[in-house]
Amino acid sequence: MYFAEPVAKLIEHLAKLPGIGPKTAQKLALYLLEIPEEEARALAEAIITARKNTRYCSICFNLTDTDPCAICRNPGRNHRLLMVVEEAKDVAAMERTGSFNGIYHVLHGVLSPIKGIGPEDLKVRELLLRLSREPVEEIIIATNPTVEGEATAMYLASLLKPLNFKVTRIAHGLPVGSDIEYADELTIRKALEGRRVLE
Amino acid sequence: MYFAEPVAKLIEHLAKLPGIGPKTAQKLALYLLEIPEEEARALAEAIITARKNTRYCSICFNLTDTDPCAICRNPGRNHRLLMVVEEAKDVAAMERTGSFNGIYHVLHGVLSPIKGIGPEDLKVRELLLRLSREPVEEIIIATNPTVEGEATAMYLASLLKPLNFKVTRIAHGLPVGSDIEYADELTIRKALEGRRVLE
Repeated sequence: MYFAEPVAKLIEHLAKLPGIGPKTAQKLALYLLEIPEEEARALAEAIITARKNTRYCSICFNLTDTDPCAICRNPGRNHRLLMVVEEAKDVAAMERTGSFNGIYHVLHGVLSPIKGIGPEDLKVRELLLRLSREPVEEIIIATNPTVEGEATAMYLASLLKPLNFKVTRIAHGLPVGSDIEYADELTIRKALEGRRVLE
Repeated sequence: MYFAEPVAKLIEHLAKLPGIGPKTAQKLALYLLEIPEEEARALAEAIITARKNTRYCSICFNLTDTDPCAICRNPGRNHRLLMVVEEAKDVAAMERTGSFNGIYHVLHGVLSPIKGIGPEDLKVRELLLRLSREPVEEIIIATNPTVEGEATAMYLASLLKPLNFKVTRIAHGLPVGSDIEYADELTIRKALEGRRVLE
């Protein structure tokens, strides 16, 4: 054993985190042993508190410490405009922009035949259920612009359009600040397809 | 607030770790909320246990859960051969090779006039004290081959040689498996200086 047992154990646990290899785990463990004890303890307690006090909102399935979550409960948000996203982190990314005032629905994944993920593994049934109760008019499908995200968007559109919702998809195109020269063909094609009249 | 408060707090604490930016902290936090609760709790408890049960060995200042540490207590190690290293992680790296059977002394840093770190900030006084009591004959200085590590080695040598210890320095040279073509000038010069007769 190269480190004292409690240190070795801490390294082992840290190395299980995604993107953390054994070297980084060792660095983090030694850091946690060097800093003031309160700080190390604060991190440990933040993990336990987050686990204890966080759940999924029973309406939109976003991460929340209250149920329903702050967004679902907020009468100031536009409850006729619902955005479907893959993960809780997409809600955070969207909220950060400050340019969306509707409500959300978190799918918790995307359709993936290869990984064996079907609609029953996502919060699709829950989406249909809430749509039957809530005054939603437009549904923005904001899954990622990946093969799986596209397939999920298509699937949801085929499900929701017959129910007479306005179903929209976030735009694909060239990212702001990017360079056409370096953009991939598919993005350029999507940018052309999605072109708009300048007014 | 883009995440529920306990999640935001966890992200904030994770982002304080070295080499962990806000994006990685977010990824780690969401991972810790997804995995089974026991696993997240196990990490939190490993942090607390490591802090509670780990101290520095009162002899060699390595990280340990017993005092003196397992190496200092081991009569099977060669107590006449002492290796001075910068940090506890260097002890781990050395032990991993299995090619050193002596004992250690961890300085907890290197001399650095720029950062204002002098001998009184390192475990130098403690080294001299234990050398006056222990049967050490040879001292291997294994600080890193950096400017500061070299300066620290020189300083220690000037301190220890007059006390009639055999003071040695680990060899500098080309790393095994490397390519002379890509080695820096200083390493090549050190490799030449340190050349040995083939027998």
